[in-house]
This record gives sequence, C-alpha cells and structure tokens, in this order.
Amino acid sequence: MTIVAARRYRQGHLVEADVLASADEAGRGEFDWIGLVDPTVEEMAELAARYHLHPLAVEDALMARHPPKAEAYTAQSFVVARTAAQGPGDTVAFGQTAMFVGERFLITVRQGSARTHVDLRTQLEAQPDRLAEGPDFVLHALLDFIVAGYDPLLDRLEETVGQMEDGAVEKFPDQARIRRIFRLRRVLRQLDGTAGRMEEMTRKLAEVEQPAIDARARPYFRDVYDHARRVVSRVRVNLDGLANILEVASLLEQSRQGAITRQLAAWAAILAVPTAIAGIYGMNFEFMPETDWRYGYFVVLGAIALACAGLFVRFRRIGWL
Amino acid sequence: MTIVAARRYRQGHLVEADVLASADEAGRGEFDWIGLVDPTVEEMAELAARYHLHPLAVEDALMARHPPKAEAYTAQSFVVARTAAQGPGDTVAFGQTAMFVGERFLITVRQGSARTHVDLRTQLEAQPDRLAEGPDFVLHALLDFIVAGYDPLLDRLEETVGQMEDGAVEKFPDQARIRRIFRLRRVLRQLDGTAGRMEEMTRKLAEVEQPAIDARARPYFRDVYDHARRVVSRVRVNLDGLANILEVASLLEQSRQGAITRQLAAWAAILAVPTAIAGIYGMNFEFMPETDWRYGYFVVLGAIALACAGLFVRFRRIGWL
Amino acid sequence: MTIVAARRYRQGHLVEADVLASADEAGRGEFDWIGLVDPTVEEMAELAARYHLHPLAVEDALMARHPPKAEAYTAQSFVVARTAAQGPGDTVAFGQTAMFVGERFLITVRQGSARTHVDLRTQLEAQPDRLAEGPDFVLHALLDFIVAGYDPLLDRLEETVGQMEDGAVEKFPDQARIRRIFRLRRVLRQLDGTAGRMEEMTRKLAEVEQPAIDARARPYFRDVYDHARRVVSRVRVNLDGLANILEVASLLEQSRQGAITRQLAAWAAILAVPTAIAGIYGMNFEFMPETDWRYGYFVVLGAIALACAGLFVRFRRIGWL
Amino acid sequence: MTIVAARRYRQGHLVEADVLASADEAGRGEFDWIGLVDPTVEEMAELAARYHLHPLAVEDALMARHPPKAEAYTAQSFVVARTAAQGPGDTVAFGQTAMFVGERFLITVRQGSARTHVDLRTQLEAQPDRLAEGPDFVLHALLDFIVAGYDPLLDRLEETVGQMEDGAVEKFPDQARIRRIFRLRRVLRQLDGTAGRMEEMTRKLAEVEQPAIDARARPYFRDVYDHARRVVSRVRVNLDGLANILEVASLLEQSRQGAITRQLAAWAAILAVPTAIAGIYGMNFEFMPETDWRYGYFVVLGAIALACAGLFVRFRRIGWL
Amino acid sequence: MTIVAARRYRQGHLVEADVLASADEAGRGEFDWIGLVDPTVEEMAELAARYHLHPLAVEDALMARHPPKAEAYTAQSFVVARTAAQGPGDTVAFGQTAMFVGERFLITVRQGSARTHVDLRTQLEAQPDRLAEGPDFVLHALLDFIVAGYDPLLDRLEETVGQMEDGAVEKFPDQARIRRIFRLRRVLRQLDGTAGRMEEMTRKLAEVEQPAIDARARPYFRDVYDHARRVVSRVRVNLDGLANILEVASLLEQSRQGAITRQLAAWAAILAVPTAIAGIYGMNFEFMPETDWRYGYFVVLGAIALACAGLFVRFRRIGWL
Ligand SMILES: [Mg+2]
Ligand SMILES: [Mg+2]
Ligand SMILES: [Mg+2]
Ligand SMILES: [Mg+2]
Ligand SMILES: [Mg+2]
Ligand SMILES: [Mg+2]
Ligand SMILES: [Mg+2]
Ligand SMILES: [Mg+2]
Ligand SMILES: [Mg+2]
Ligand SMILES: [Mg+2]
Ligand SMILES: [Mg+2]
Ligand SMILES: [Mg+2]
Ligand SMILES: [Mg+2]
Ligand SMILES: [Mg+2]
Ligand SMILES: [Mg+2]
Ligand SMILES: [Mg+2]
Ligand SMILES: [Mg+2]
Ligand SMILES: [Mg+2]
Ligand SMILES: [Mg+2]
Ligand SMILES: [Mg+2]
Ligand SMILES: [Mg+2]
Ligand SMILES: [Mg+2]
Ligand SMILES: [Mg+2]
Ligand SMILES: [Mg+2]
Ligand SMILES: [Mg+2]
Ligand SMILES: [Mg+2]
Ligand SMILES: [Mg+2]
Ligand SMILES: [Mg+2]
Ligand SMILES: [Mg+2]
Ligand SMILES: [Mg+2]
Ligand SMILES: [Mg+2]
Repeated sequence: MTIVAARRYRQGHLVEADVLASADEAGRGEFDWIGLVDPTVEEMAELAARYHLHPLAVEDALMARHPPKAEAYTAQSFVVARTAAQGPGDTVAFGQTAMFVGERFLITVRQGSARTHVDLRTQLEAQPDRLAEGPDFVLHALLDFIVAGYDPLLDRLEETVGQMEDGAVEKFPDQARIRRIFRLRRVLRQLDGTAGRMEEMTRKLAEVEQPAIDARARPYFRDVYDHARRVVSRVRVNLDGLANILEVASLLEQSRQGAITRQLAAWAAILAVPTAIAGIYGMNFEFMPETDWRYGYFVVLGAIALACAGLFVRFRRIGWL
Repeated sequence: MTIVAARRYRQGHLVEADVLASADEAGRGEFDWIGLVDPTVEEMAELAARYHLHPLAVEDALMARHPPKAEAYTAQSFVVARTAAQGPGDTVAFGQTAMFVGERFLITVRQGSARTHVDLRTQLEAQPDRLAEGPDFVLHALLDFIVAGYDPLLDRLEETVGQMEDGAVEKFPDQARIRRIFRLRRVLRQLDGTAGRMEEMTRKLAEVEQPAIDARARPYFRDVYDHARRVVSRVRVNLDGLANILEVASLLEQSRQGAITRQLAAWAAILAVPTAIAGIYGMNFEFMPETDWRYGYFVVLGAIALACAGLFVRFRRIGWL
Repeated sequence: MTIVAARRYRQGHLVEADVLASADEAGRGEFDWIGLVDPTVEEMAELAARYHLHPLAVEDALMARHPPKAEAYTAQSFVVARTAAQGPGDTVAFGQTAMFVGERFLITVRQGSARTHVDLRTQLEAQPDRLAEGPDFVLHALLDFIVAGYDPLLDRLEETVGQMEDGAVEKFPDQARIRRIFRLRRVLRQLDGTAGRMEEMTRKLAEVEQPAIDARARPYFRDVYDHARRVVSRVRVNLDGLANILEVASLLEQSRQGAITRQLAAWAAILAVPTAIAGIYGMNFEFMPETDWRYGYFVVLGAIALACAGLFVRFRRIGWL
Repeated sequence: MTIVAARRYRQGHLVEADVLASADEAGRGEFDWIGLVDPTVEEMAELAARYHLHPLAVEDALMARHPPKAEAYTAQSFVVARTAAQGPGDTVAFGQTAMFVGERFLITVRQGSARTHVDLRTQLEAQPDRLAEGPDFVLHALLDFIVAGYDPLLDRLEETVGQMEDGAVEKFPDQARIRRIFRLRRVLRQLDGTAGRMEEMTRKLAEVEQPAIDARARPYFRDVYDHARRVVSRVRVNLDGLANILEVASLLEQSRQGAITRQLAAWAAILAVPTAIAGIYGMNFEFMPETDWRYGYFVVLGAIALACAGLFVRFRRIGWL
Repeated sequence: MTIVAARRYRQGHLVEADVLASADEAGRGEFDWIGLVDPTVEEMAELAARYHLHPLAVEDALMARHPPKAEAYTAQSFVVARTAAQGPGDTVAFGQTAMFVGERFLITVRQGSARTHVDLRTQLEAQPDRLAEGPDFVLHALLDFIVAGYDPLLDRLEETVGQMEDGAVEKFPDQARIRRIFRLRRVLRQLDGTAGRMEEMTRKLAEVEQPAIDARARPYFRDVYDHARRVVSRVRVNLDGLANILEVASLLEQSRQGAITRQLAAWAAILAVPTAIAGIYGMNFEFMPETDWRYGYFVVLGAIALACAGLFVRFRRIGWL
C-alpha cells in the first residue's frame, strides 16, 4: 500500500484518479498529486525518472529521520516537514512528510507519520478554485495541516507543566515528579529542535524565492511560519517553566533541610543535658555528697528541667524550633 | 456591544458617527475608524468584505492570544499588539488589540483588553490637525497608548523586586518569599516574551516601509520602538535581580548551614566528654580504685570540666563556636 | 539656575555671552552653545520654538532616566548620554546629558548629572581652532568627557573585585562578603546595561551618517566608541570575576563541609566505643562475671583504649581525620 | 609509503597510473589525482612547485591538527577536513585530510586518518561519467565520505547517552557513571567543535563561489553541509541529554539526602527517649522514690514504650518516617 | 633606550641604519622601519610630526593597556596587538605592540612586551625579496610572530588542564586544586578577551580594505586570523574543561557526602541498640526481675548482638553500608 493517491487535476477539478497508469504528462492548467507512504527505493526511482526528481532530494525523502528543510533544485522545490503526534505517556511520536513540488506536480512521501492526507484532500477537492492555484497552494495546505498538528500536543504539555508549576509553589516535588520533569524536558527539547527547524524551513519558503512557488503564495507561507514560530515560542516557555520549577525546588529543599538541621541540633542540645547530668550522678563513686542528700534527686531533676526549658526558650527565640 | 465606534473623519473632523449605516466609501481626505470588541466571525466577515481585509489577517485578529506582529498585505498593513494590565496578586492580565490600516480606514479589534480607546479618541478628536494626518497617525497613537500601559505594571514589579533585593542582603528569604520569587519570574518571563515581540513589531514599523503608512510617521514609530525596548530592558533587569537574589540566597543558606554544622559538631564533641567519662565510672566493676578515693568524684568532675573548657577554647579559636 | 550658558562663537571665538537675550540667529561660521540644567517644560518649549527642535526629542530630553541613544531628525541630531559618578558605598550615581546638535547650535540638557561642563568649556574656548570646527566637534568633546568619567569608577570597582578575588583564593567569603558581592553585581549590571547603550550610541555616531555631523568627525567618534567598548569590556571582566568567586566559594564550602562531616562521623564512631562498652558494664545484673574479676576494670579500660586507637588509626588512613 | 596514488584521468577514465614519473601536465578534459599520507616537507615542496600550490596552504596541510577550513588562493581552492573514528573506550580518534583543488588536479594529504580512499577511488573509477565532472566532484565525494564517517560514531554515542538517560530516571548515577558522563561530555565537546567547523566549511563551499569549483556542484556541497549540520545537531542533543542527567541527578541526590536526614533525625529523637529516662533512673541517689516502688520498673518501661510509639506515629504523619 | 631601530630599506636592502639622523624622506621603492620601546610623549610627538601620524592613534599607542584594534586614518593604518608570555606561576604576562603603517614607513611601539623584534628583523633582512614587498608585509610578519607567541602558553595551559581533567575522573579535587582552577579560569578568561580581540583585528585586516595595505597581502592576514581563531578556540576548550571539572566535582562531592551520611546514620542506629538496652538495665530499680536471673546478662548481651547484627545486615542490603 505504498501509493495511496495518484490524481490529476485540471482547473482544480479531478480529471484522472490513477495518473500513473498511463504515460501522458500533465498539460497546461493541470497538475498531478501523487501520495506515497513508506515507498521502496525502486518505487521512488520510477517516480524520479517520470518527474525528473533530483537524486539528492530522493535520497533525503527516503531517510526516515531527516530534519525539516526547503531546498531548490533547478525547476523544482523540495520540502521536508516533520509531523508530531501524541505518543504513549508524555512522549511525542514524530513522523516525516517529504514533498516534491514542480510546476505541474506535487509528490508527498510520508514516513512513520500517522495522520493521512485523505481528509485534507477531500476538503481541497471541495474547493476547486483553491486547488486551481496549483501545487504550491497544496504545499501550503499540507504545511498548514502539519504545523497545526503540533497544537494539541502543546496544549497537553502546557497543561502538564502548568499543573507542575502550580504544584511547585505549594509542595516540594517528590522523586517521581522530578523524574517526570526530566522526561518532559527531553520531549520539549526534541520539540524545540524540530519545531525550530520547521520555523526555519517555513521562513525560507516565505522569504526566499523558490522554483515552482508563486510569489502570490508568500503571505500564506508567512502565516505558516508565524504559526511555527508560535510553536517554538510555546515550547520554550514550557522549558523555562520546568527550569524555574527545578531551580526553586532545589532552593526550597535546601531551605527545608536547613530548617531540619537546626531543629535537630536544638533537640540534640536539649537532650544532651539530662544525659550528661544523669551520667554524672550515675557514677559509682563511694563519696558523692549530693547522692546522699534527702532531696538531691529532686533538686537534680529540677535543675535538668530548668536547663532544658531554658535551652528550649532560647532556641525558640533564634528560630531554630 | 461588539461595534463600539464607526466614525468617519474629514480633514481630522468628525463628519459621520455611524459610518456602517450607509454603504458609501470614504473619499479623498477622509477615513473611517471602526472599533470592535470581541467580534463574532460573521461581523468580521462583513467588515472584511467592505474593507477588503485579507482572510489571513482576519483569522489572526479573531485569535485571542496572537503574539504581536506587523504584516503587509498588498495595500494594507495589519498590526497585532498585546496590552498588559495589573492582574490579581503579582500577575499580569494580557489583552490583545489587532489593527487593520488602509489608506482610508483603521479598524481596531480588541480581545480581553480592559482599557477602552474612548479617552484616546476624545483626545485625538480635540486635535484635528493630528487626526488629519490619517490612519497611520492614529495607529501610532494607539501603539503609544498600549506600550505606555506597560509602565505602571513595571513600576510596581520593580518596586517589589527592589524590596526583595534590599531584603535579600539583610535576611535569608523564607519559603513564602522563595515561592513569590518563583511566581514573579513566571510573570516577568511572560512579559519578556510579549514585550520582546512588541519591540520587534514596532521596530518593523519604524524601519521597514509598510503600505498605508507614511514615511513621515517613521520617527513616531521609532519613538514607540524606543519605549518598547526600554520596557524589555526593565523586564530583564528585574529578571536579573531575581536570579541574583536566588543565587546569593543559595550561597548564604549554604554558608549558614555550614556554620551550624560546625557549631553542632563542636557541642557534640564537648558533651561527649562527660558522657564517656561518666559512663566509665558508672561501670559496676567490683574493683575500681578511683571510686574508692575520698575525692575521686571531685577529681573526675574537675577533669571533665577542664576537658570541656579546653575543647571549648579550641573550637572558639578555629571559629566553630 | 536652569540656563547655565548661552554663548555664541564665531570661528571658534566667543562673540556673545548671552545669546538668548536677543532674537538674531547665528550666521555663517557661527554657532550657539546653550547649556541647561534640569529645565522646566516651558523653558524647553521656548528653546524648541527658537531652534526648531523635534517634539519627540524634547520629550526624551525631559525624561530623567532615558537610556543612551542617537537619533536623526531631519536636519538635526539628537543624542542622549548617561553620566556615571561614584555614589555612597559601592553604588554608582547616574546622571543624564541630552544634546541637540544643529548646523549652527548645540544645546545640552543635564539632569541629575553632577559634573558641570564649565572646565570643559574653558578648555575648548582656549583652543579656537578646535571650536571653529562647529557643534559636532563640541559634541565629541562632551561625549569624550562623559565616557572618560566612567574610568575612575571602574578603577575603584576593579580594585574591589581584585581584592575579593585575591581573598577568595585564600579564605572563604563570610556572609558580609557574600552580601557585598551581591551589591557589586547589581551595580556592575546597571553599568553593563548603561555602558552597553553608550557603546551602541557612539558606534552609531561613528558609523552611520548623521545630520549636522561632519564626516571628518567620524574618527573622533570612533575613538569614543572604542573607549565605551573598553568600559563595557572591563565591566564584564569584573562581573565574570564575581561569578567566578561565587562558584568557587560554593565548591569550597561544599568541600569544607564534607571534610567536617567526615571528621564528625569519625569522632562520633570513636566515642561510641567507650559509651557502648561502659553502658554494658553499667548494667545492674546480679551475675556479670567480668565485674567480679580482679583486673576486669583495667582490662575493659584497655580494651576501650585499644578499640578507640584502632579506629583513630583507620580514620587517619582513609583521610577522615 | 607517502605517495599512495598519482593517477591521471581523461573523460573519467584512468589513462596514467603514475603521473609523477613524467613531467607532462594534464591537458584539456584531463586531471591528476595525487594521494599522500603523512608526507615530508620536501615531498610537499616538490608537489607545490609542480602544481603551483600556495605556501600558506602547504603549511596548513603539513600541520597535524588544523581545524576544518575552505580557502581560495587565486585559481585554486584549499580544503581541510577532519575525520573521526571510534577510539578506545568512549574516545574519538580524529584525523585530517587536506585537499588542494585545481582546474586539472586534486591533491589529498592525509594525516593520522585511518580510513584509506582506496575503496572510494575504486568506486568512482567504476563511474567514469561522474569522474569526468572533474576534481570538484571528487572533492564532493571525499567530503561526503568523511562526513558520513561521523555517523557510526554518533550512533554509538547516542545509544550510550540514551541508556544513561533511561538509567537516570530509574536509579541515581554512581560515581563510576558520573565519571563516564564527564568523559562523554569531553568527547562530545570535541566533536561539537570539530563538526561545527566542518559545517562552516561545507556551507562556505555550498554558498560562496570558489575557484576550480563549478556552480553545478553547489547542490552537492549543500547536501554535505546538510549532513554536517545534522551531525552538529545530534552532538548537541546528546550534550543536552548529559546536562539534563547531571541536573536531575543533583536534584535527586539532594532530595534523597533530605529524606535520610529526616529519617535519621526521627530515629535519633525516638531513641533519645529511653536513653534520657534510663539515664535518670540510673542515677545513684539514695532517695529516689520511684525505684523503690514494686512496679516502678514496668511503669517506666511502659512510659518509654508509649513515648517512643507516640513519637513514631507523629513522625510517620509528617512524612519523616 | 627608547629608539631601538631606525632603518631605511630600498628594494628590501638596508640602505641607512639611522634614518632619524637626517631629514630626507623615503623615496619610491624605499621605506623606513622605526622601532620604539616605551617612548615618552615628546618622542612620539616628534615622530608624529615627521610621519604625519594621527593624534588619536598616537594617544592609543602611548596607552599601556589598549585592546587589539585595527583602524584606518586617511592614508595610514594603525594596528594595536597584544603579546602574551608566560608569567610567574600560572599567570600570563601581557604586553603591547602598536604599529603605524604608511606607504613608506612602519613604526612599532612596544610597551611591556618582553620579546624584541631583533631576531625577526635579522630574519627578514636575510630575505630582501620579502622585505621589498613593503611595510604591509612587515606588519604581517610582526603579527604572525606575536600570534605565534600565544602557542607555547596554550601548550602549557592545555597540559595543566588536561592533567586536572585526568585527575578529576580519578580523585576529588582538594581545596588547593579548587583554588588553582579558580586562578586558571581567571587567566583563561583574560586570554579569551585578548585573543578574541586579536581575532577581530586580524579578520578586519584580512577582509576590509585598509590604507597602505596591498590586496596581495590579504591571504597572509587571513592566515594570521586563522591562527588567532585557533588560539581563541583552544582557550575556550580549556575553559570548558575547567567548567566540566567543577561541575563533576560538585556532583561527586554531593554523592560522596550522601554515602557518608548514610553510613553514619547506619552506624548510629546500630550503636543506639546497646546504648538504649544497657541504659535500661542500668536503671537502679529495686525490682527488675531480669537482673536477678542467672543468665540474664548473657541473654541481654546476646539480644544486643542479635539486634545489631540484624540491623547491620539490613543496612548492607539497602546499600547504606
Ligand atoms: Mg539545533
Ligand atoms: Mg532537528
Ligand atoms: Mg528559531
Ligand atoms: Mg532551534
Ligand atoms: Mg520563535
Ligand atoms: Mg509566534
Ligand atoms: Mg519568541
Ligand atoms: Mg510572545
Ligand atoms: Mg527581544
Ligand atoms: Mg531590547
Ligand atoms: Mg530604550
Ligand atoms: Mg535592552
Ligand atoms: Mg546556576
Ligand atoms: Mg540601559
Ligand atoms: Mg551591550
Ligand atoms: Mg576597545
Ligand atoms: Mg561590546
Ligand atoms: Mg567590549
Ligand atoms: Mg565551535
Ligand atoms: Mg575545531
Ligand atoms: Mg557551528
Ligand atoms: Mg549549527
Ligand atoms: Mg540538517
Ligand atoms: Mg544544526
Ligand atoms: Mg571576546
Ligand atoms: Mg580585551
Ligand atoms: Mg571572538
Ligand atoms: Mg582556525
Ligand atoms: Mg572564534
Ligand atoms: Mg575559534
Ligand atoms: Mg549550573
């Protein structure tokens, strides 16, 4: 199930549902939209021959993990985008969509990307006037679709980080939470790298003239660029939030440990009094005058109590207890 | 209450208070100023049709949380600004004002922004010579008004951070203060992101030619840019201040904890002397010559006192006590 | 005492000591030098009318705390510089000098700046050939004077930081020193911000053509820029030095605390031996054979001493004591 | 064995296997490929005279550790690349390949680089149409080969770091692991520096016109640049991962130590109860009424047990135990 | 001994050994090389008059600590370089060489720079063809000489840091080593600042056209720039290495302290058992049934031993011992 679409449009209307069956090329006002999923090297070679694709671009399209890029090859543009979807737990599942854009064709190559383009295609076919603009407008629709796919992901991450921030000002993060922060950072850094490249790629499409892409399409790519930039910005705000949590958690733990050390020291001092005094009166000397006094025991008990109380009051005052 | 203003000006004088009631367009020397608050998609669509607004701009204007931007669409400029007001506690309440600027109209779309433009409009209407300059000068007045709105906010934050800095050099921040620093950083980072984009947007207006904006208006936008830059600079100084507090607090706590550890160790050592000696003389051996001596008890008490005093003096000298 | 000077020069020679008394304008080869200190809004308005100053520039000149900038307004240049002087303790007292430069006039507006321009003026008036170059050369002399004012300040800060660095490699900073580092950082960061803007402003004057400033003056402004850059560089070296002290202090404290913890643990272990053994022989059992032995007491004392000595040697070997 | 190849090609076909044996120069459509390994200064001088190499380039080629660069000398290009191979343990063994590119020759100088070019040469000689493109296409093949050599290295490092990240969320890194992280960082930073320079060098070849390099070769160098950039990006992701591990490890250790301190304090408090009470009843006063009661001992034992249990419950509740 | 050289060359050959003795200027194909060491203001003024040096350049040349720079003054270039030599201990002794370059003269002004130019001059005079190229080639030779002077310094620092890195993975740095790291960082940061400016200055000479410097000299300055960049790069690698050592040392100390805390807690718990039990049986109650049993003592001793052994095994299992 490699080739999932091979359609020809004329003035935005579908005229041929299996264009690869015959050898005739798209004419004026026509363009082909070929959709592939995880193609083999041989299938790509066939398409490359038919549409004169550049071997370097074909090589990139066949790589499973190529960072986003936009490159011009003589009369064609080549674009790699990365898709992002919610993975298990806090992870993100990345996929890849490579797009070859010619004057009269658009080839999309998906790898490990879960979202099909069926709905999008149906939607575009319902608007012949937009489809009539040609492959560059379809490229825009695809990129718009892919970048918009980052939003639900970020909504969820943002909620998670927001809850953690709320939690951080109330209670120290336990070890499980620290580990989750660690994993979230890993994910957000992956997103930062990938979205940063998406931003770079869309900016190139918005600002640098590209073959087979009309100047009229520029504001549309600028809008996608704007969206990608927003994604990067949100990712970084969340990374900042996690860094903030970690730094404050560290300080809170430090301060908490300091308080306990002081408390511990104070109690140790207070309890050292009966231990030391009782130890002394526990010695087995023949002649220890106090032990023979009638109320010696009570005097010593009282002295111990007084000393302990005195220390207690003092530690209270200096804030150790 | 979506449409809050729909006025037409000729040479800076109000000539029509409800311009949307009729269909005639603004003529030479005239312009319309339409003010909207949280409009519906349908209302925006109507205005878009009347003033030929670009669909991408309309889409952005309807988003509640779009970062500041300035974009050119053929003969119109589109600007998004974010307003900032004091929220509850240390928070900031952000709002949004989108502005469509044409040769003969200005449309403002407010979302979640609390400050109305009524006073500003009254003020401008009192200066017909300034209003006569057209929509670009009104755009400047609006941006000037919005950026100036960041100042009272920063005054307050600066005072808070300043007090904390003064406090930090006197006393260690307690847990409540650490938590407040955490919240302040969050707010200042939001402000940094937003004000940074305001700076970027105003610089674009000041330096890059834009449709429907006169070259004569440039120095005015440069002045707003200058102000936005000042805001960013103040935000960063305060972020730096908080980072400085945290770092010094951590070092002070470390040093304080070290002092207590040393003190604790010293007292533990001193008190270990009577405990150990008394323990030995508390043993129940039949034959312990010292216990039979007449003044054994006093000799041992004295030895204990001497040893403790010796240790005390030594710890004093090395600064542990 | 707002207007402190209002002089007219012709070919570098003073021809009029109170130029504001009459209404005639400076002619060819002449220029006016007006000096103001903390002027009122009205006074500025009068001068603005007489010399056609831009309202945005006038507004900036009246602000007490405007960051350094250089801006061109049609035929005039406007420059804001910040002066720095030694304040009480380790603080810096900033002031402001705004300068309006026209083809035939120079207006200086000082706010909170303690150093008068009297000496500088006397000096320049003694060199008519330099004064004859016009207002741009006076602007250079003023900026040179202001930037040179940062040097004694930095000399002092550098000495302070240098002493702290020397101290840091010898002894751990106590709490008073940590607090001083905190305050010095605050001051150095203020200086960094301000001097960085001075650098930016002087670079603009040295590299970008400005109205009323001759191309021949460029190398002179480049020299001031060079000086400002040196100031920024020195400020950062000192900030780096403080950061270095803090980081090393933290590690030294950590290592010192570790040493004490180990020492404390070792002594606690050694002293636990007599306590435990003595405790056992202090039990009141009827039948404890050892207590009845003739030399039981001495055997036990010896055993205790041996065990303690053994532990002591072992802790020495592993470096805990 | 310094000169390992000295071949002449005509239209991509080998026409001469030892070109240095005679003095005749390569003609139109021909080029020489000279391969050297660790040449002496004299050998380089001979080649420099024959092919008019620039003395500065020759000097660089003879250095054993020159960072990657691309430089133009009149009609020739000079390129230095660094090779990377797996060294013992976690280390990387760097080597160097300098390349002189003229219109009709290519000279490669390897130093400390383990991978020979034999296979690559055999491969290229099997594709005469590619070889016929001339020295610039051979340069591309060499750089492509060298940059691809970084990948297996990174695969291994990535796996190591990935395992450490997985480990970090499960168990605190022990001292051996901390030391390994330290060594990995050192290696990754070396890689970062070197690969960053490779990226810079390949970008220069892809974007700036160079003598003896055809404009048609540009997309090929851009592809190598893309690959080098990917290498840099992977290196940084791994450095980030290690930093993340270290930071989280530090926080986990802090939190773990806090838990133990609290536990220790709780048990110390609980055990202080029997010690203090038993100490008191161990005193040798003649008159201690409780000691004479029939069930005094059991009452005291019960009181001790109760107090200890009470403390235990309390510490449980506040989470210390 | 201020003027150490004053020679005239014609076509690269020495024609006059004391050019300042007479007043005739260098003719076509001739140039003067004047060498000064720590000159007085008056001496500089004389030379400035004779060779038309710019007063701003003269001022810089007389400063003892000017950062590296390259500046153009009408028909002359002015260059300041900083020399670096090994100082006592780990320090670096910086010096300064200012160079005035005209069409027909080169003036070098050394301040605090220990390495004379005698050897270099002798070397150049032995190559008349190189000297014949004029003052710009001598400038190159001087800069090449100065930048090469950083290498032995870095070799030594690199070795020191390398040993520390090797040490860091084996043993925790003691306080002396921490202090040495502190001092090395200080030195490396100075070097970073200075070498960074050297890089900037040489890049300017290599890339921007300068008066009195031939375009043919460009590749030579690019080579010096390359070398300066290598110096900066090496300095940063070493700074990174030190930062790496500090960070890992901190983590290792933290982990080591954690281990000791756990060990300490375990032994405290084990030893608390005999203390508590013995304390109880040391109480002086009349009626304590166990003390009257025949083997009570041995039973209690056994119970104590068992409890201690049990705890020991448990602590072993959880890794505290
Ligand atoms: Mg990246
Ligand atoms: Mg990426
Ligand atoms: Mg980016
Ligand atoms: Mg990025
Ligand atoms: Mg962004
Ligand atoms: Mg955005
Ligand atoms: Mg951003
Ligand atoms: Mg933002
Ligand atoms: Mg910004
Ligand atoms: Mg800014
Ligand atoms: Mg500003
Ligand atoms: Mg700023
Ligand atoms: Mg930090
Ligand atoms: Mg500033
Ligand atoms: Mg700056
Ligand atoms: Mg400088
Ligand atoms: Mg700077
Ligand atoms: Mg600087
Ligand atoms: Mg690098
Ligand atoms: Mg390198
Ligand atoms: Mg790089
Ligand atoms: Mg990069
Ligand atoms: Mg890449
Ligand atoms: Mg990269
Ligand atoms: Mg630098
Ligand atoms: Mg410097
Ligand atoms: Mg640099
Ligand atoms: Mg280099
Ligand atoms: Mg560099
Ligand atoms: Mg470098
Ligand atoms: Mg850190």
